[in-house]
This record gives sequence, C-alpha cells and structure tokens, in this order.
Amino acid sequence: MQDLIPHIPSLHSEPLAAALQQRIANKTKPLGSLGRLEDLMLRLGLILGSETPELHQPQMMVFAGDHGLVAQGVSAYPSDVTWQMVENFLAGGAAVSVLARQHGLDLVVVDAGVAHDFAPRKGLIIAKIAHGTQDASRQPAMSVEQCATAINEGKALLRQRPGNVLLLGEMGIGNTSSAALLLARLAGQPVAGCTGRGTGLDDAGLTRKIGVLQAVLQRHAEASEPLQALAAFGGFEIAMMVGAVLQAALERRVIVVDGFITSSAVLVASRLQPAVLERCVFAHRSQEQGHALMLQACGGATPLLDLGLRLGEGSGAALAWPLLDSACRILHEMASFASAGVSEKQAG
Amino acid sequence: MQDLIPHIPSLHSEPLAAALQQRIANKTKPLGSLGRLEDLMLRLGLILGSETPELHQPQMMVFAGDHGLVAQGVSAYPSDVTWQMVENFLAGGAAVSVLARQHGLDLVVVDAGVAHDFAPRKGLIIAKIAHGTQDASRQPAMSVEQCATAINEGKALLRQRPGNVLLLGEMGIGNTSSAALLLARLAGQPVAGCTGRGTGLDDAGLTRKIGVLQAVLQRHAEASEPLQALAAFGGFEIAMMVGAVLQAALERRVIVVDGFITSSAVLVASRLQPAVLERCVFAHRSQEQGHALMLQACGGATPLLDLGLRLGEGSGAALAWPLLDSACRILHEMASFASAGVSEKQAG
Repeated sequence: MQDLIPHIPSLHSEPLAAALQQRIANKTKPLGSLGRLEDLMLRLGLILGSETPELHQPQMMVFAGDHGLVAQGVSAYPSDVTWQMVENFLAGGAAVSVLARQHGLDLVVVDAGVAHDFAPRKGLIIAKIAHGTQDASRQPAMSVEQCATAINEGKALLRQRPGNVLLLGEMGIGNTSSAALLLARLAGQPVAGCTGRGTGLDDAGLTRKIGVLQAVLQRHAEASEPLQALAAFGGFEIAMMVGAVLQAALERRVIVVDGFITSSAVLVASRLQPAVLERCVFAHRSQEQGHALMLQACGGATPLLDLGLRLGEGSGAALAWPLLDSACRILHEMASFASAGVSEKQAG
Repeated sequence: MQDLIPHIPSLHSEPLAAALQQRIANKTKPLGSLGRLEDLMLRLGLILGSETPELHQPQMMVFAGDHGLVAQGVSAYPSDVTWQMVENFLAGGAAVSVLARQHGLDLVVVDAGVAHDFAPRKGLIIAKIAHGTQDASRQPAMSVEQCATAINEGKALLRQRPGNVLLLGEMGIGNTSSAALLLARLAGQPVAGCTGRGTGLDDAGLTRKIGVLQAVLQRHAEASEPLQALAAFGGFEIAMMVGAVLQAALERRVIVVDGFITSSAVLVASRLQPAVLERCVFAHRSQEQGHALMLQACGGATPLLDLGLRLGEGSGAALAWPLLDSACRILHEMASFASAGVSEKQAG
C-alpha cells in the first residue's frame, strides 16, 4: 500500500508565493484586475516552482473503460458507444480531438478496460485490465488486485509521458454512475444529489438510475475507505486516472481536471494524499448534477469556465487550456510599471 | 443623421438556424452537451451566414482617449497613464499585447483623442478628434459635430480593416465614468448602481465619483437621445467605437465585446440600431460595478467568461477568442454519428 500510494508533499512556499505576488502586482495593470487569472498565475508558479513558469508538451490523456452496471439501465447510450467513441477519438472526429488539434495538445487514448479488442495503432495505449468491470449491483466492480494494477498502470503510463502538464479526459458509458457512487460514499452525500442525467436520461431514467445506485451503495456498505470504494464502484478508467494523478502530483506536473468523472478520480486521490489538490486546476463547472458537490469535496475548487458543458472526454480541460497558457505568458512577457514607464496609482 | 447611422437589418433566418441546429445535433456527442458553446456556434453561423462559418484575420482594435472629467477626481490614476499605456501597447508589454500575440490577433491602437502627441509608427492609427474631451461637469464632453466626426472616423477605420471579426478594446483614464453615465441615462438606472471603482478607487473615492456623476447627469438632463448622451458624457474612444460597431454590424462581422466600456459603445449603437446586438459576442462578465446592468441593457447578454476581470484594453475579448475559434472548428471538423459509426441514444 505504501508502494502503491506515493507520499505527496505540500508545495507551500512562503518566499515563492510572495515573489509571485510581487511580480503580479508590478505588472502594468490595476492591482487585482486580472481576477482569477492572477490566482491561476500564482498556482502555476507554485506547482512548477518558478516565478516564470513554462508549460511544455501538455498531454491530453483520455482514459476509457466499460461498466458492468450498464446492464441495470443506468445510461441513455449502449456500452458499444465506448469503443465507437475511442475509434472516433483516434480518427480525429470527436470534440476532444478537434480541440486538442486546435491547441497543439498531444492526445493519447488509454484503453483501461473497454469491452472491445482494438487493433494497435498510434495514439492508442492498450492497458486493459479486463473487458469492462463487473456489475456493481451484484459484486464489486473490480477486485482489490485489479484496482491496484490499474493504479500502478496509471502511474507507469504517466511516467512515460513527456512534458509538465497532464490534461485529464475519459470515456466510458456508465461512468457517471461510478463517479456519483464515489462522491456519495467519500463525501457522505445522499446519492440523489450526486446523480445526474449523464449522457441524457429522461426523468424516468434518472429515477431508475438513483434507485440502482442506492442499492449499490447498500450492497457495498462496508466499502468506506477510498480504495475500497474505488474497487467496489469502479471503473478501470477512474482507477487508472487515480494512478496518473498521483504520479503527476509526485512529479509536480500541472493537472488540468475536466468534469464530473475526472474529478471523481481526483477526489479519490486527494482522500489518499490531500496535497494532490495543490497541483490541480479545475477546468470547468459541469452541468452534470453532482459536480458542484464534487468540487466542494475537492477542497472547494472554483473552476475556470462555466459554459454548461456536460460532454466529458477532456473537452472542458482542452477549452480551458489557453487560459493556462495566457497566465504563463503574462507572467513572462507583460511589462512592469517601472520597465514601461507607466505612472502608478495616486492616493484616493 | 441617416448618413451617419446605417440601417442594420435583422439576421433572422429560420432555414439557416434550423440547418445549424441540425448540424450541431448530429455531432457525436449527447444533445446539448456542449452547452453555451452550441449557442455560440449558432450565433457565429447566423452572423457569417454559413453552416460552417470561418473566422479570418481577427482585428483587435484598441480605441484610446482622454477625459476632461478626470479633473474632478473620478479616477485612481492620472490622465498621463492613457498615453503611457498606448506606448505600452505599441511596445508589446501590456496584457492585451501579450494576449494578441498568443492568439495571432492583429492589434492596432487608435488614438481617438488622447491628450498627447504620438510619433507615428506601425500599429498606431492617429485619428485624434481633440486632445481629450471637455470636462462634462461644466459643458458637454464634445460637440455634436465632434461626436459625428468620431462616429464617421470609426466607420471609416473599420472599413479599412481586413477580416470578418472585430475585437473591441479601449484605454482611457476616466472612461468608466462615461460608460456609467451612458448606462444611467440610456437604461434609466440610478447612477450609484452604474458606478464602480474603475482602476481602483477606495470607498471615499467611489463616493466622490458617484457625487460627480450625479451632478453631470443633472447638468445634462436634456441629453436623453443616444447621440445627445454620447456627446454630453463622452468620450472620443467610445464614440469612435460606436462607429466601428455600426460598420462592423453592417458588414456582418462578428463583434467581440470586452467589458464595461466597450459594452457602453454597443449600448449606444444598439439604441440606434437594435439588430447590432445580433452580431455581438460578449466576452466576459466584468467585475466592474454596473456591468451586470449593462449586459441587461444590451438585451440580457450572457458573456462567455466570468473570471473577475476588470482590466479593459480588450483583454477579456482576447481571452475569449479561442472559444470562438473552437466553436467554428467543431462545426467544421467534428464527426457526425453517421460518419463516425457511433450508435445513437436509446429510449429511456
């Protein structure tokens, strides 16, 4: 267990924070006038340990997996859509493919446990734990061994990627159920408030989903620790993201968190190692019911964008990416009052 | 007057709107899951008259001017900062300079009426109406003739710019006062709710500013029509933006509106020609007090970003730019369910 979960130290550094704040304050603009972009500058500087942080070779990793619980009718789409969308990512036709191309993000898709055999090709990493998880309404979604293997695989994959930024994406029909279950259990929230329409359930479908999830929670009432809950509720893509997040945090990479599902991986990781959250930038506020509670459980994070997105894939992380780039460029390139010869504020 | 203000027709087209909505619905994603980015796709398609709109040669135009009212102590910074910041824009050291470089936006600064003589150079358009406006607490900020000249100049400048996107920026110590006055008069709002701290007034400064603006409103009680109010309250940069906005709207360019000041130019233009608003994309919700009322007065616009910015310059417009680019790329490049072979939604 100590081997599985690395110790993540706090980044807190009073001298660097003060230097960054001073640098931001001296830029040719009214104090605080870049709002939350200034908070982002401070965060990126602290993560990367520099007054002039530089982002390089950002990696968009889309983790995919299938969910046995889909047999209980918790999704508006069939499980086949998981592998079909993986093909769509690889062919460059999905939203996240388009956005990654726009912003020059390296996109890799990780088969963490899709119920389909893919032909190997560029951009696809086959790291399948199994052909989908078990039906969590009948047994744990995965064994404790599978869970540990998935976390280790996520750590290993991240270690092999270049750059200092991880953008998290995911695909898995049924995975809003896993995320809702993890939130309900780890944050002690009633499941109804954690459960949303996912890819588009109607009212009857949502009611059915909540009923199924309530039964799953009761079935695994003993799974109270983060890793127990992760094994009980799944999925493989979430477990692998937990590993990737822990490894990225250990290496002081910037972790750009997408929406509800990727946040659930961050939630698990942060319950194991709270300082993980210091490395995270939450990209957007998802429209999926439960994401507000999820953000609260992740240390009260305030995301950068609020566009009513609920697509997943990493699309929100990709959309937020230019703001991170802007924050670093401003720290590097923007003039100070002294260097530009601009008068400072008067009294009053 | 008819020569000055062109007629802006409505863009409403039921067949194009239906075609765009169909195109968006067929993309490989749950219906509506790209949230407000889908609204943006629809808007850009309608403005540019295409199911697959393309943005080209985006022009960031930063209009600068000085304000006689600054003599009454309405700003935390001295008027000299206007020309000093123009120099900073041209030297590439301001926030908007950095962001325009990042996104490949052509940046031009327009001297609409700065109280300083600039040496001519690349990137600077000298279109000075006068060396700053008059003190609006004593007389109209500008004459009716100056106002018409500024509007015509704005139209002419826009006509000479390439591309199909105008991003609006501004610089002018004292111009939050003009914007607040225009909002109070044209939207019939109490001035206190329209008036903010601008570049950073303290409580006493804000109270003084509100008092000055109340007196200015009383001094020009007769200035109730949009162009009368514009002449009475200024400034030259706002009047020139009114002209640029009208011309851009006439040419069906996309108008990306920055914060409080640029919105005040859109407010004036839209009170003259309401269909101007159909061409506008509001970039961000400014932290400046009064911007929420301004957005309401501009047809209840919902901006893309909400980052607590209050810098102006066009910085918010530049930060929002990648979202417009994303919207168009998704319309162009993203696969449909049929083309990608992805299963559609099930019942339930």
